[in-house]
Amino acid sequence: MSAPLKIAVAGLGTVGAATVRLLAEQADLITARCGRPVVVTAVSARSRNKDRGVDLSGLAWYDDPVEMARDADADLVCELIGGSEGTAKDVVEAAFAAGRHVVTANKALVAHHGVALAEAAEAKGLALNYEAAVAGGIPIIKALREGLAGNRLSSVYGILNGTCNYILTVMRETGRDFADVLADAQALGYAEADPSFDVDGVDAAHKLAILTSLAFGTQVNFKALHIEGIRHVSAVDIQFAEELGYRIKLLGIARQTDHGIEQRVHPCMVPLGTPIATVDEVFNAVVAQGDAVGRSVYEGRGAGAGPTASAVLADILDVAAGRRCPTFGIPANQLVPLAPWSMDQYVGAYYIRLMVKDVPGVFADIASALREAEVSMEAILQRGRSPGEVVPVVMTLHETSEASLRNALQRVEAIEAVVEPPRVIRIETL
Amino acid sequence: MSAPLKIAVAGLGTVGAATVRLLAEQADLITARCGRPVVVTAVSARSRNKDRGVDLSGLAWYDDPVEMARDADADLVCELIGGSEGTAKDVVEAAFAAGRHVVTANKALVAHHGVALAEAAEAKGLALNYEAAVAGGIPIIKALREGLAGNRLSSVYGILNGTCNYILTVMRETGRDFADVLADAQALGYAEADPSFDVDGVDAAHKLAILTSLAFGTQVNFKALHIEGIRHVSAVDIQFAEELGYRIKLLGIARQTDHGIEQRVHPCMVPLGTPIATVDEVFNAVVAQGDAVGRSVYEGRGAGAGPTASAVLADILDVAAGRRCPTFGIPANQLVPLAPWSMDQYVGAYYIRLMVKDVPGVFADIASALREAEVSMEAILQRGRSPGEVVPVVMTLHETSEASLRNALQRVEAIEAVVEPPRVIRIETL
Repeated sequence: MSAPLKIAVAGLGTVGAATVRLLAEQADLITARCGRPVVVTAVSARSRNKDRGVDLSGLAWYDDPVEMARDADADLVCELIGGSEGTAKDVVEAAFAAGRHVVTANKALVAHHGVALAEAAEAKGLALNYEAAVAGGIPIIKALREGLAGNRLSSVYGILNGTCNYILTVMRETGRDFADVLADAQALGYAEADPSFDVDGVDAAHKLAILTSLAFGTQVNFKALHIEGIRHVSAVDIQFAEELGYRIKLLGIARQTDHGIEQRVHPCMVPLGTPIATVDEVFNAVVAQGDAVGRSVYEGRGAGAGPTASAVLADILDVAAGRRCPTFGIPANQLVPLAPWSMDQYVGAYYIRLMVKDVPGVFADIASALREAEVSMEAILQRGRSPGEVVPVVMTLHETSEASLRNALQRVEAIEAVVEPPRVIRIETL
Repeated sequence: MSAPLKIAVAGLGTVGAATVRLLAEQADLITARCGRPVVVTAVSARSRNKDRGVDLSGLAWYDDPVEMARDADADLVCELIGGSEGTAKDVVEAAFAAGRHVVTANKALVAHHGVALAEAAEAKGLALNYEAAVAGGIPIIKALREGLAGNRLSSVYGILNGTCNYILTVMRETGRDFADVLADAQALGYAEADPSFDVDGVDAAHKLAILTSLAFGTQVNFKALHIEGIRHVSAVDIQFAEELGYRIKLLGIARQTDHGIEQRVHPCMVPLGTPIATVDEVFNAVVAQGDAVGRSVYEGRGAGAGPTASAVLADILDVAAGRRCPTFGIPANQLVPLAPWSMDQYVGAYYIRLMVKDVPGVFADIASALREAEVSMEAILQRGRSPGEVVPVVMTLHETSEASLRNALQRVEAIEAVVEPPRVIRIETL
């Protein structure tokens, strides 16, 4: 039996508390699996006296997590504070400086500083593990970094934010609108008081930036991402999507194209028959497409104390058992810069909804506008006629470039009978 | 840069050839991922001169794979011969005796001799990796052994045989019957000339026996499995299933119950809304339920040269990178025997289809028979009436024990108007 692996835990929110509890509850199992015990020796959090339902007696307490990372009697520091800058980053850097491994659930930190931190870790032969940073309890980092390591990947994409998926699911099931469902989600604790991080796609983008690096051996580059959230998805679009055989999901997509690697987060219409279309509520799912393995799909809870702690434990157990892997699959100093790519280069199919005054000649005007922009319509949908009233007109477009689309939309918007800015959702066949 | 990891490949069928090809094609990537090259040094197969589309020049050739496992200049032997006894087993034992790691795709071997082989490997500090043995390219062994290592699992189940899933999918889509679709599947190469291994559930059972051990820390025990195949699933049952909101899948299920751990392979009706219901064609899917992570689902191609080689490479790369894990998650000598469990202890809901002569009083007779067996009906389905003709009558039963069910079926079968043995499919809500 080897010596125990000693852990210092920075941050005792729901995930931190669940991690400490799980390490204690599963101690026997963990010892059997790692060949050595894993013990928490030190903790740090804002308030010492809060009841977290975990026994902290016998553990060293630090008011300052950076001091803990530097000084505690620990082999590994578990960073569960969060945020891309400030304390969390200081804790991780202090841990590496002191020669300790790091396990973190911090997607913002890895998305913004992943390469520099990986280089710091790898220079000292230390682990930087972050399974909990992407898709919660789904072991997707391990799958990409190790399980599919014999593949060259052509794409990785998925539902990476449980809050958005929950809101879109409820909107579809109830026909209610975004703001209304968001308020409920906030009351239920599924969305933050300030929801922008989730609903504007930033959280999904952090996760996608990490997946891109793992999939393609590129330097994590959050700035290269195209990001749109779900605020503009309306209940009526969700209904039209169903009629057309699609479901609306917020996807993060990283894909090798002829023009380079695209990284984009935005609402998508996905065909009803695809595995990802039926992933509802707070569940996440990631699809990886490899040259040897083909399509593989990973689904599970993307957030919550239990699933996140499950991922944190997997990372800790890897260190305890001596299993190591370069942070992003290959050594950080071999990651290549991401070639520039912009959304202008995107080519795909589109769903467009116009709000149109039902007057003679309006369809002809729309058709002309599209033809002038050299954009080709696949289908058009309008139910009934209401002369003089404003009615939704839905179109799907064949594959076209984002640039041509914008040109077409400008022309369509200039038509007098078109009374609202067009709503556009990209159709992903993937 | 460390010394290369040297591989000897036993068996050059489609998987063996794909493995050799992939190791060559992805050489640069593999070196970056493992920190050392991985090179094939020796091969063995039946025919030396067959064209396999791979360059074997410069590799040591062995007519006898056991001799290769013993003598070749190799750190790791890749066993891709297959079969639970004979050459494959001899190759693996010879490799361990000679101090070499083993990677295998051989589910039968691991299901029948897993514990003894794991003990042999672990006694010498060698790896026995078998990711390709279960669910093809899906990295489910790694997920259970490492990714969910912080969890206690309550169940693991899934679609483990692509041939059966393909047949059931085509039966549903076309309304054709089993024998007919099987013949087509054989012509397409999706089913073997002797299909019994697949369609009678043996292949799925081998895989389930392995998953059970990983999930529950028990000794692999293939003999403890209850196995039924899909030969008796008829097109009419598939149609009734859809009407009732179910889909018929051949599942392998291992579950912790009050009476011990059950292991069973049989056709199931699964509710249409569950992730597994929409997994079609040759795809496999595995669901693991853990105390911390909740439900997690893994889906991908369960067979074929590419997916299987992808899994074999993952196993080889783990050895090359020095990542090690006990064969079944905990050391083989700590695995506990599986407590006895029999299908008599099973309790669940059932679908029953009777073929009944439509004569007065027959429903009353059936109802009485069920009541006498203390079995409670949930719903009954019969379309139209055809006095004097034979018509299908479909019932679903509330949760009942397998013993009570058998009692009820005996009584029902004794009714004169019931003209065929009842067809029974278990309903799984999981």
